[in-house]
Amino acid sequence: MFPVADALAPAATALFTVVLTEGPLSRVGLARRLDLSSAAVTKGARPLIEMGYLEELAATERSGPGAGRPASPLTIRADREFFVGVKITRDELIGVVCDLRAQVRTAVHRRLSETDVDHVLRQIAEITTELLDGSGDYRSRTRRLGLAISGDVDLATGRVRYSPFLQWHDVPLRELAEQATGLTVTVENDVKALTTAEHWFGEGVGADSFALVTVGAGIGCGLVVGGRLVSGSFGVAGEIGHISVDVKGIACHCGSRGCVEAIAGADAIVRQAREATDRPELTFDDAVALARAGDPGVSAVFARAGDAIGSGIAAVANLVGPSRIVVSGEGLSAYDLFEPHIRAGFQRQAFGAAADCPLSIRPLPFEEWARGAATVSIKALVASWRRPV
Amino acid sequence: MFPVADALAPAATALFTVVLTEGPLSRVGLARRLDLSSAAVTKGARPLIEMGYLEELAATERSGPGAGRPASPLTIRADREFFVGVKITRDELIGVVCDLRAQVRTAVHRRLSETDVDHVLRQIAEITTELLDGSGDYRSRTRRLGLAISGDVDLATGRVRYSPFLQWHDVPLRELAEQATGLTVTVENDVKALTTAEHWFGEGVGADSFALVTVGAGIGCGLVVGGRLVSGSFGVAGEIGHISVDVKGIACHCGSRGCVEAIAGADAIVRQAREATDRPELTFDDAVALARAGDPGVSAVFARAGDAIGSGIAAVANLVGPSRIVVSGEGLSAYDLFEPHIRAGFQRQAFGAAADCPLSIRPLPFEEWARGAATVSIKALVASWRRPV
Repeated sequence: MFPVADALAPAATALFTVVLTEGPLSRVGLARRLDLSSAAVTKGARPLIEMGYLEELAATERSGPGAGRPASPLTIRADREFFVGVKITRDELIGVVCDLRAQVRTAVHRRLSETDVDHVLRQIAEITTELLDGSGDYRSRTRRLGLAISGDVDLATGRVRYSPFLQWHDVPLRELAEQATGLTVTVENDVKALTTAEHWFGEGVGADSFALVTVGAGIGCGLVVGGRLVSGSFGVAGEIGHISVDVKGIACHCGSRGCVEAIAGADAIVRQAREATDRPELTFDDAVALARAGDPGVSAVFARAGDAIGSGIAAVANLVGPSRIVVSGEGLSAYDLFEPHIRAGFQRQAFGAAADCPLSIRPLPFEEWARGAATVSIKALVASWRRPV
Repeated sequence: MFPVADALAPAATALFTVVLTEGPLSRVGLARRLDLSSAAVTKGARPLIEMGYLEELAATERSGPGAGRPASPLTIRADREFFVGVKITRDELIGVVCDLRAQVRTAVHRRLSETDVDHVLRQIAEITTELLDGSGDYRSRTRRLGLAISGDVDLATGRVRYSPFLQWHDVPLRELAEQATGLTVTVENDVKALTTAEHWFGEGVGADSFALVTVGAGIGCGLVVGGRLVSGSFGVAGEIGHISVDVKGIACHCGSRGCVEAIAGADAIVRQAREATDRPELTFDDAVALARAGDPGVSAVFARAGDAIGSGIAAVANLVGPSRIVVSGEGLSAYDLFEPHIRAGFQRQAFGAAADCPLSIRPLPFEEWARGAATVSIKALVASWRRPV
């Protein structure tokens, strides 16, 4: 077994984060990348190597001018520690085990028959046991569990202030889940967790600013500005779903009209598709099938929804100017119906050079949400090494 | 004369910035505030005292437990250096001299009969001479000039990429103005300059995030997130004027419909007021007078404009969550007509706790724009002290 980490110097956590998110780098490359002396890099890397989180790749001989000592890039030992991630939805838990590089090693789903806190906690404990004691034998190298849930979550205290889907108010979820599982728990809003995963291990790596827009039951957005996840001074940020694009439009549950979510959320699409077809039993999947079959009324519903999402994304680009925007979410299983209209709405509404911002529009496997939850707990591990100020 | 600054340690510029923006602080208070050792504070302050930028206030005797050496707070010598700030508009230059604390010492206005680059540069040189060699005798302690201009400006190179009001394309304004005045010049977008002034010397002091919205010919927005002014990866940020709040609304010059600026910019208000009254000769001031006299059609134009601005501001609060939003600009000379509708639109559209964000709505004296320009050059002075990395 490796020694447990004491507090490390800031240089150590900085170099670990760079190697973790950007890949193997030589000590010389790290010194340049982080504007540190070679001695500081060597000193910072030592305890991480001793603890088994970093290792040296086989030395590669350098040739040409300046060739001297061979360069041994530092790399992550991905299987040094594993992390459980669980996404909690209204009717299901999705759980994964990830390694230190946030690669999913195993995944399970579990139906939720009830949504009261006790029941959900029991299911979290059971899914964790199933994940850790199953075929992979991850138990001995797993100490952390990340939970992701939609709604208003306080990462610092691990409290769920309000979850509309579960109808939870002020639940000390971190504390309860630590009691139920014996693991060190982090709790984060699901969109922020997914944004953290994209920022550390996805399309946002190295970006100073970056946005992730999720399309599904709600329309959410995670924002990274100046390299940091934006949380909002009043706990609200990234609420792209409640930008109004049509002052006289459809009434929204928030009390306003024409919000992006009131036009393009899954429930809103079903409601509009039912009206367009006069078929009150229509489901979301029925609406997708009808639109794909060319039904003009239902196609128009998806077109309007995509346009509203594109217009909301343009507001993000016009205000904040991220270097890249990823659009994803379970709603994008119907991605073919949305994509051209998202792009058209974005192009019309993006101002000047803001239209140059690349959009990646792609479906999102549901396990990705759970991977996001695991990523938050990887980030918490690195944060735990920092010396208290 | 004081010695000229060499490169200073990061601690020195950090402590100078804190004393400049937050006021006098003892060495002990600075050490705590900046998480530095007392030795680092003393070492950082020494060259700034030698150069005359900082001085010690008369020692105040401390009493009570722990009373020992008297605390001598460090404070700024505001008249150590002066800064010229000039705002360039389509038909006027507004110039000020500010001290190191951005207090306006003197201000002059000068009409622009033409807007070609040569003419404007001659006028900048003349207004600078008038400001520096007039009654105050600021010349000997002034080395820097800040210029503020609406449009697309590159602060780093001092180039005006595009100014729609002046019809300038790719003008190397910094270089030209340095030749014309002999001063060290900074050029910044006018809304960003004003935001910098509010962030360093106004309602944004100490705020991690902060927004300034300007209402006038255009509707602009400056954003500070994580303590830094947001510039946008593609040079576009804060374009609140081109958030669409009405997908089927008034056509905007940007090519879209229902943009905040197309409803609430000064030209848009005049156009709508003319239509409402069937009086094609109506001016902005006429519209204000009619609305104040209770004309229902023209009042409705201001109400719609205020509501659109409020809705746009709510988009800023929903996405970024600033700790405070200041709404200002020359358009707010008609502030009584806008304010209740800005607040109503904001309250309706702000999501959840985002509605708690305080709005300061107030008119803006035109000299404030020039003060913003001077502030950018104060910031450039501090930046010039930093050691190159």
